[in-house]
Amino acid sequence: MASKVCAAICQLRVTADKKANLARAREFIRLARYRGAELIVLPEMFVCPYANHLFPLYAESFPAGEALSFLSSVAREERIFLVGGSLPEKEGDHLYNASFVFDPEGKLIARYRKMHLFDVDLPHLRYRESEIFQPGKEVVVFPTPWGEVGLAICFDLRFPSLFRKLVRRGAKIIAVPAAYNLITGPAHWELLVRSRALDNQIYLLGAAPARDYSAPYVAFGHSLIVSPWAEVLARAGAGEEVLTATLDLEYLERVRRELPILGKD
Amino acid sequence: MASKVCAAICQLRVTADKKANLARAREFIRLARYRGAELIVLPEMFVCPYANHLFPLYAESFPAGEALSFLSSVAREERIFLVGGSLPEKEGDHLYNASFVFDPEGKLIARYRKMHLFDVDLPHLRYRESEIFQPGKEVVVFPTPWGEVGLAICFDLRFPSLFRKLVRRGAKIIAVPAAYNLITGPAHWELLVRSRALDNQIYLLGAAPARDYSAPYVAFGHSLIVSPWAEVLARAGAGEEVLTATLDLEYLERVRRELPILGKD
Repeated sequence: MASKVCAAICQLRVTADKKANLARAREFIRLARYRGAELIVLPEMFVCPYANHLFPLYAESFPAGEALSFLSSVAREERIFLVGGSLPEKEGDHLYNASFVFDPEGKLIARYRKMHLFDVDLPHLRYRESEIFQPGKEVVVFPTPWGEVGLAICFDLRFPSLFRKLVRRGAKIIAVPAAYNLITGPAHWELLVRSRALDNQIYLLGAAPARDYSAPYVAFGHSLIVSPWAEVLARAGAGEEVLTATLDLEYLERVRRELPILGKD
Repeated sequence: MASKVCAAICQLRVTADKKANLARAREFIRLARYRGAELIVLPEMFVCPYANHLFPLYAESFPAGEALSFLSSVAREERIFLVGGSLPEKEGDHLYNASFVFDPEGKLIARYRKMHLFDVDLPHLRYRESEIFQPGKEVVVFPTPWGEVGLAICFDLRFPSLFRKLVRRGAKIIAVPAAYNLITGPAHWELLVRSRALDNQIYLLGAAPARDYSAPYVAFGHSLIVSPWAEVLARAGAGEEVLTATLDLEYLERVRRELPILGKD
């Protein structure tokens, strides 16, 4: 088991043009790889604007689909573990907000469907993901040379028990494609990311799209890479950015040894 | 049910002189009452320095004990709900780190024994509370005119599931006497307090002793009162201070309605 890995987040600006989004992702992944990243995470809904009425138009069904075959090819070409942010997945009559993960051979090794859908009724922000998506039912981790990596998406961050389940399945790193907004982002995003990392003594990769004031849903940006001691290792601004940090799994084990809290609740 | 309450934290400097500690607490409680507080929280181990070898010397067994009868009288005299921080409690051969709560008639209405003992082995900070205390087994809430108030102590903050249990029992406010230190305090205290408040959509009162560099265990200070939206309503410095804030239970219900997350994990 390798004890260190360079991880990256590609904080992309997402447009209505799927091909352009994939091309931009390609560019950013190349840059991240050039900086040494072997585990790369894309943002939630990196293929299309975040809007319920658009999701069906961009949905794909594995193994078919432009974005899915793109992810597989890039993972293989760049020899990386690629967490494909999330995209609308269609299965029969159902849609899911789903994250597909490919290994350095381009093989699909995990698929996580968002369990906690974004249903809120805040001032200036009403959203009902459940009007278009079905919630996922499975907790998902996948193996890498650096240990198990767990998956969660955006609103899932507000549910501590999901993260405990991921950790019980061995997760040392958790990748969270997410798209907080200008209301919940400034108020809660960094707090949630840091606290899930701290409570579970994991590395957390919170991958957001870049902010775009012309989009129907304006994402907050500020992707984060946080350590098991809750240190912010890297923090993006609001614009487009490739974020990298070295995750040290021996440091993680030391934190767990020195502050033994896991398995005690 | 009253919808607002002024709550206070007395951030006391704790010395080896128990009588002096109680006198200081008396003074601070009077000040808090003068500022309108009806729910007042004292720090963890407000009767004695934080050190395993000292706890047996300061321990009390309900209903006997100088600190316990002090708490009961003050609650009655000031007509307040008083969360008596914590003190070493002796029952038979066992010691507990326990919090006793008295109502405005001076009657004991709750006793919580710390469930998660502070056992860490950090650089420059080895501590083993379990060498002297037994862990508590009961989750405790108590009724007030402002709804149920839950109890937790210090290291308990690191365990999300205890807070979920308190909320399932109806807690809208959680009082947490605590004594973080100069290592875990700057790194984690505010993050933990804010995230437990946010995850559970509660008011959280984190009551710390004042910092004292001459003490065997140097507390961090920085008591906090945090809202269900994770706003810091009041934050103490390192020294002695009375902290007050108004807790608005209608605001809490609004947050729970607009961002419905409880009961979904």
